[in-house]
Amino acid sequence: MDLESSKAKMNAKAETTQSSQMVFFFGPEGTDGNAAMKAILGGKGANLAEMISIGIPVPPGFTISTAVCTKFYEDGKKLPEVVWEDVLKNISRLEKSMGKKFGDPANPLLVSVRSGARASMPGMMDTILNLGLNDETAEGLAQISKNSRFAFDSYRRFIQMYSNVVMGMNSSILDITMEDIKDVKGAVNDTDLTAEDLRKLSETFKKKVFETTGKKFPTIPMDQLKGAISAVFESWNTPRAITYRKLNDIPDSWGTAVNIQAMVFGNRGDDSATGVAFTRDPSTGEKKFYGEFLINAQGEDVVAGIRTPRPVTELQKAMPAAYEELVGIYTKLEKHYRDMQDIEFTVEQNKLWMLQTRTGKRSAEAAVRIAIEMLKEKLISEEEALLRVDPYSLDQLLHPRLDPDAKRTQLAKGLPASPGAAFGQIVFTPEEAEKFAEDGKKSVLVRIETSPEDIHGMAVAQGILTTRGGMTSHAAVVARGMGKCCVAGCGDIEIDYDRETMTVRGHTLKKGDSITLDGGTGEVFLGEVKTVEPKLSADFDALMKLADKHKKLGVLTNADTPKDAATARRYGAEGIGLCRTEHMFFDSERIDVVREMIVAENTTDREKALEKLLPMQKSDFAQLFEEMAGFPVTIRLLDPPLHEFLPQSDEEIKNLATKLHIDGARLKSKVLSLHEFNPMLGHRGCRLAITFPEIYNMQSRAIAEAVVDVMKRKKLVVTPEIMIPLVGTAKELAILRKQCESEVQKVQAKSGVSFKYKIGTMIELPRAALTADEIALVADFFSFGTNDLTQTTMGLSRDDSGKFLNAYVSQGIFEKDPFVSIDQKGVGHLVKLAVDLGRKSKSDLKVGVCGEHGGDPASVEFFHRAGLDYVSCSPYRVPIARLAAAQAAVRKT
Amino acid sequence: MDLESSKAKMNAKAETTQSSQMVFFFGPEGTDGNAAMKAILGGKGANLAEMISIGIPVPPGFTISTAVCTKFYEDGKKLPEVVWEDVLKNISRLEKSMGKKFGDPANPLLVSVRSGARASMPGMMDTILNLGLNDETAEGLAQISKNSRFAFDSYRRFIQMYSNVVMGMNSSILDITMEDIKDVKGAVNDTDLTAEDLRKLSETFKKKVFETTGKKFPTIPMDQLKGAISAVFESWNTPRAITYRKLNDIPDSWGTAVNIQAMVFGNRGDDSATGVAFTRDPSTGEKKFYGEFLINAQGEDVVAGIRTPRPVTELQKAMPAAYEELVGIYTKLEKHYRDMQDIEFTVEQNKLWMLQTRTGKRSAEAAVRIAIEMLKEKLISEEEALLRVDPYSLDQLLHPRLDPDAKRTQLAKGLPASPGAAFGQIVFTPEEAEKFAEDGKKSVLVRIETSPEDIHGMAVAQGILTTRGGMTSHAAVVARGMGKCCVAGCGDIEIDYDRETMTVRGHTLKKGDSITLDGGTGEVFLGEVKTVEPKLSADFDALMKLADKHKKLGVLTNADTPKDAATARRYGAEGIGLCRTEHMFFDSERIDVVREMIVAENTTDREKALEKLLPMQKSDFAQLFEEMAGFPVTIRLLDPPLHEFLPQSDEEIKNLATKLHIDGARLKSKVLSLHEFNPMLGHRGCRLAITFPEIYNMQSRAIAEAVVDVMKRKKLVVTPEIMIPLVGTAKELAILRKQCESEVQKVQAKSGVSFKYKIGTMIELPRAALTADEIALVADFFSFGTNDLTQTTMGLSRDDSGKFLNAYVSQGIFEKDPFVSIDQKGVGHLVKLAVDLGRKSKSDLKVGVCGEHGGDPASVEFFHRAGLDYVSCSPYRVPIARLAAAQAAVRKT
Repeated sequence: MDLESSKAKMNAKAETTQSSQMVFFFGPEGTDGNAAMKAILGGKGANLAEMISIGIPVPPGFTISTAVCTKFYEDGKKLPEVVWEDVLKNISRLEKSMGKKFGDPANPLLVSVRSGARASMPGMMDTILNLGLNDETAEGLAQISKNSRFAFDSYRRFIQMYSNVVMGMNSSILDITMEDIKDVKGAVNDTDLTAEDLRKLSETFKKKVFETTGKKFPTIPMDQLKGAISAVFESWNTPRAITYRKLNDIPDSWGTAVNIQAMVFGNRGDDSATGVAFTRDPSTGEKKFYGEFLINAQGEDVVAGIRTPRPVTELQKAMPAAYEELVGIYTKLEKHYRDMQDIEFTVEQNKLWMLQTRTGKRSAEAAVRIAIEMLKEKLISEEEALLRVDPYSLDQLLHPRLDPDAKRTQLAKGLPASPGAAFGQIVFTPEEAEKFAEDGKKSVLVRIETSPEDIHGMAVAQGILTTRGGMTSHAAVVARGMGKCCVAGCGDIEIDYDRETMTVRGHTLKKGDSITLDGGTGEVFLGEVKTVEPKLSADFDALMKLADKHKKLGVLTNADTPKDAATARRYGAEGIGLCRTEHMFFDSERIDVVREMIVAENTTDREKALEKLLPMQKSDFAQLFEEMAGFPVTIRLLDPPLHEFLPQSDEEIKNLATKLHIDGARLKSKVLSLHEFNPMLGHRGCRLAITFPEIYNMQSRAIAEAVVDVMKRKKLVVTPEIMIPLVGTAKELAILRKQCESEVQKVQAKSGVSFKYKIGTMIELPRAALTADEIALVADFFSFGTNDLTQTTMGLSRDDSGKFLNAYVSQGIFEKDPFVSIDQKGVGHLVKLAVDLGRKSKSDLKVGVCGEHGGDPASVEFFHRAGLDYVSCSPYRVPIARLAAAQAAVRKT
Repeated sequence: MDLESSKAKMNAKAETTQSSQMVFFFGPEGTDGNAAMKAILGGKGANLAEMISIGIPVPPGFTISTAVCTKFYEDGKKLPEVVWEDVLKNISRLEKSMGKKFGDPANPLLVSVRSGARASMPGMMDTILNLGLNDETAEGLAQISKNSRFAFDSYRRFIQMYSNVVMGMNSSILDITMEDIKDVKGAVNDTDLTAEDLRKLSETFKKKVFETTGKKFPTIPMDQLKGAISAVFESWNTPRAITYRKLNDIPDSWGTAVNIQAMVFGNRGDDSATGVAFTRDPSTGEKKFYGEFLINAQGEDVVAGIRTPRPVTELQKAMPAAYEELVGIYTKLEKHYRDMQDIEFTVEQNKLWMLQTRTGKRSAEAAVRIAIEMLKEKLISEEEALLRVDPYSLDQLLHPRLDPDAKRTQLAKGLPASPGAAFGQIVFTPEEAEKFAEDGKKSVLVRIETSPEDIHGMAVAQGILTTRGGMTSHAAVVARGMGKCCVAGCGDIEIDYDRETMTVRGHTLKKGDSITLDGGTGEVFLGEVKTVEPKLSADFDALMKLADKHKKLGVLTNADTPKDAATARRYGAEGIGLCRTEHMFFDSERIDVVREMIVAENTTDREKALEKLLPMQKSDFAQLFEEMAGFPVTIRLLDPPLHEFLPQSDEEIKNLATKLHIDGARLKSKVLSLHEFNPMLGHRGCRLAITFPEIYNMQSRAIAEAVVDVMKRKKLVVTPEIMIPLVGTAKELAILRKQCESEVQKVQAKSGVSFKYKIGTMIELPRAALTADEIALVADFFSFGTNDLTQTTMGLSRDDSGKFLNAYVSQGIFEKDPFVSIDQKGVGHLVKLAVDLGRKSKSDLKVGVCGEHGGDPASVEFFHRAGLDYVSCSPYRVPIARLAAAQAAVRKT
């Protein structure tokens, strides 16, 4: 019976037993659970039951269900009486199965007590081994095993674990006592202590426990068991467990199960051992048996690092028979579970026992390789292969990384705003960054925050570090778009622009000092930390090809420059979903022309300045059309408020006035008059074109002329898509569409070249979504600008929300940062509404998204379900979006 | 047959004939139209037909329908041939009816050609009298009438009108010619010219027309008629007509009708006259016959003011029989139409003819009086009485007004932001305004724009004048709330704060100079213009009582002070729907404590400062509870971002640092760190309380303690409603509600006083509306904050939209300023959705609105239809809202 059919069969049972059965036995005599019952038995318990049912040697035991954990807390942290009665019954069953008796010095049954939640929470909760030992049973164990050393080693371990986990004693007290005794005895390893040393140690330990806690160490095994079960349930709510669940989206309500299992002993002598292993290399994905073991040790020793474990393949020499069996079992487990397994085993007197199997965690690189290789091995289907790789994790593969072996000194930690690594000399202005670049020096641009005027500096810096702003601040968004490393909102750093220094906890660095950023963790390091370049494997390409085969959504890119466009094409983008024309305005040779246009006092002057901009824009567009060679290119007309292009300081204003030959005071008053209280909600987007039609007219003409140029020169068929931002009413779009069409038609008539084009709009205001049926009548396509739609729907400024967003996420008000992953209930509701309304008016309406959410896997899945045609994201997110889109398609079917 | 039954009968006919019949005859032989057919016949045509059908003497004629106007424009400004054929047929019918022939010198038929749109557009379109005259028919008319003077006076009038209206000639050319001839002849009045003078004048006129236009004056009556009809249709699209329609919400598509009617002559001698009159006094509403007439004149003369007309009652002496008949007719007309009528009449050789009747325009004062008196006379029902008064117009009655007879010199004109009149000396800072107030001097506060920090100055100034911001700018909103006169956005004025001067078109005024504001027109006058105080009549009170009887919506008020509350109560408010607690924070003795709270570095320091604020807030609330004596009082907890309370200039920051004994640099950096890019979408509202729970906790405590205080001291039952702003998720409200309840319960427990209270939320974010079902589960009430809901839904900053809002309204993108009247399709959609979702979760959810829209009649009607329980508006808008609510209720049934 393989896992799937076992799941199917047992699910019914799981459903019916869920409400009544609290304790589930597993052993050769009969097993109540299976792998599908993780919700009730936890991952560990479910897999132990499953392994037994497929004939793998597992010490028998029983699992107290997760439902009891809930009851435990409801009853004020008390184990319900009925459950305890069930536990006693199962102990009897276990005694029969093992032929031993709990607390019987003649032949004592010892058990382990372990937590096991539905989702793996490694190291987060507690474990007690060797439970059932007291002075008498320890003596009995020594006699039966003819191994006093083993018996008292087990005993002292039990006292250590129990006193810590159940009695709440600081574990270092007994650790220190043990070290003291090792010193006295001249012992290097624990194994150097004799049986007699260990027997005395258990006495000393018990005394220490009494001295420290004021309580006698419990000697009755049933009392020990009851205490241990309660302690495991309580460990569900330790602060570290709570934090772990928050970080990993595990609901508090799930609770943990408790597994009570007959002990087997890897510490019973040199014919015993314990180990952990993976069925494939979790770091590279290579198909080889990978793990470690220790002779004469209990499981904890391998992980604890007290002794240095040996590679698992060496077990072949040490215990050939056990190794042979282990290889057979791991192969069987991987086939059965159809995924790479992370296993724990113990050999007791040459007999192999399996203590755990679970799906192994792996690096992104390994995940890709394992998925593709298992597909080739026909172990899994294409759909499964796609689902085996976390799209988020691909980010790691696309950017340079810090060499994991390199030494480093951490200076501060901010938000991991854009992945990758960057090393360079500190500069504080974009101009300095350019100067450094001209001199062939690498720089890191350090700013309190960035603005569109900094882009030229960001483009030439190796990385960007800001002290303010969140994951979706200007710096973060632009850096991700550029595929450039960025650490944002690093509040510990104070910048003094005047002195050109940055200070972090008393340590001051000046311009020219070197730092290294890790955009994947948000860390800032002193000096240079070596990096390694990413190499995309053939497996990666195979996975992407597979994704494209299955996905329904188109994946386009947000790109403003031919370089961005080329990168995105390399990563598989099927066109440009958003080209922000304003980014072309900040170029140093253009910005003054742009400013001339803005300060113009009348339409004629404005048109004159726009005439100068036209050839520049035309050449920009032509380059993009060439680069995208026939793929759609969606160009958004001017969006930001005009004041973003003007200088703000008195000196800059004075300089500009001189350059433009106008009165300084007049320019200053123009700058002041353009000031806005809430620029996000101000005079921007299509509102600019309603008041100054000549701006969009110039841009429409530039687009049309660029199309003509490329069609003539390159014989390419170009179909531009003109996108009008910030539309709130159908009338706005109708007015601007007409103007735009008229400009394009004029160019077509004049050139004699005809081409198709689309005119569409961004849906980024709630009102646009609510009236999408009307807007669709005058739009060829919709592109959701989910950044701004999130800002307006939630009334949440992206640039200002940093001050409270953490509190909102940590208090569970927002599940995730809504600028990172779309708020499905609120913003998503409007997206769905607009898609439905839009298609009702125009069934073939093309609908996509071009906000930051286009590269977020959870959001991509949502957009797939909402019926969008495409997503558009920054170039480095294209592979993530492709995989996420494929997963969405696979999950839906 | 009265009007109602006539309407009912004829409606069917109107429906069926609408598509086919283009020309409608009216005359003793038979009449095709009636008063209900205004859409087809225009107001004038419909009423002429109606008058004939009830036996009133009206010269016969026919009406070309409004549908022809549409066709006329569709056909490129050409009269359709079929229509012209119909016109010819109707001319024949008219000739038969009158026993005269068009163009026949022996017995010439003359006609008037007048426009007549569905809605009255007085003076906006053109009229031609005496059409059909040429040299021959003029001579014939002279002979038949035995009155050459009359004939040639008619002829010269015709040439004047026709050359202007049809031939596009500047009318002043012929006016000047006539004045020249009067000078030569020594004539004072037109009537001093002899028949011969006038005959010669017609020759001169025709010559002048040829010289000026290059075209011969048409002599064939049918050509004259065709030209006149076309000219009337064209007058529908003159700039002034277009502007008038825009201002009065009249759709361009309606078109005008053309009325061709047999001429009767008030200028046929001293037994002839012409006049206009109202059935009641349109200025006061008094029930008396009110109007003017002229002997031996045509209609235009009365209006033109060339001769001074006499009171209509004097007609009794001059022409007793005609007067008797006129009195009978006007009485019949008022009864028939059941409303005050505006009539035009002509007496030709002692025979009375009615030329027009229509519902008379009236002042707000008259509207109220007429409605109430007609109700008493049982002429109209209560519902009709309520509908007879335009709620908008009540504004005029509630504020002091400029004395209409006072002399004035206009300085500039801004937006009429808050009605009333104000006279005072110019001050440029709120502090100066306070100083002036202390010295007993009246001031007008002149600012570029106002902010919450200016409120203390606004409170003591007589009026507020700003050079920036629109109808819903801070200054406008606060001023309306205070019932204080405000002229906003007066861009012609430049303020120099440093020199303490304001300059308007070269004219500079300095601090202390006097100006007068008219908040009803937006005018600014030099020096003092006398004002008159409003007196509310008994009729006004009766109307309000009637409104309360019929309205379904509760009308509450937005009030922050006991004074506001008292005013609102006087105007009939049924409670406080919005008390903005932050307005209490700006008081000079409190602001520093508030600032201390804001700059606190930790919770303890913040709580210390809040402890100091508590007694102040408590006393504020207690006063409001007392003033409202048992009516509900809804208190909104702190809403604005904290930086609004901090000083911004370096010097102010330094002073504050000294006062608070903290480091200036630290304070400065605190101020900078609180800066927000988009404060509207920033760290404000309930977000403050999520990060700093102690703020709302203090406010909740202050409310509860105030309730206890008032209940103990005054034996009043107080039921406070605590309102939490800017909620976007149910979880926010759930968290804050719990904290709030806990504070209130603590106070109740400590004091032993128990009382009921409600905790609700503002719905002012799209996300809140979209998830209202969830929010309702933790809210006792919703109050729509439609100001912010408009800002977020439309992505439109109230403070910044001034730059383009005019363009949006004038291009028809917005029908009205969405901050003045709610955007029903977008924002309104969310309101309705939220009401439905909220009530689905909680059927007894109380739902109201507290944005500025609560005082806008069109919005009030919308809220009534959306099923809200109440609206809340500024005190001076309460009567408007009451009437609007009653009208909404009456209209719905």
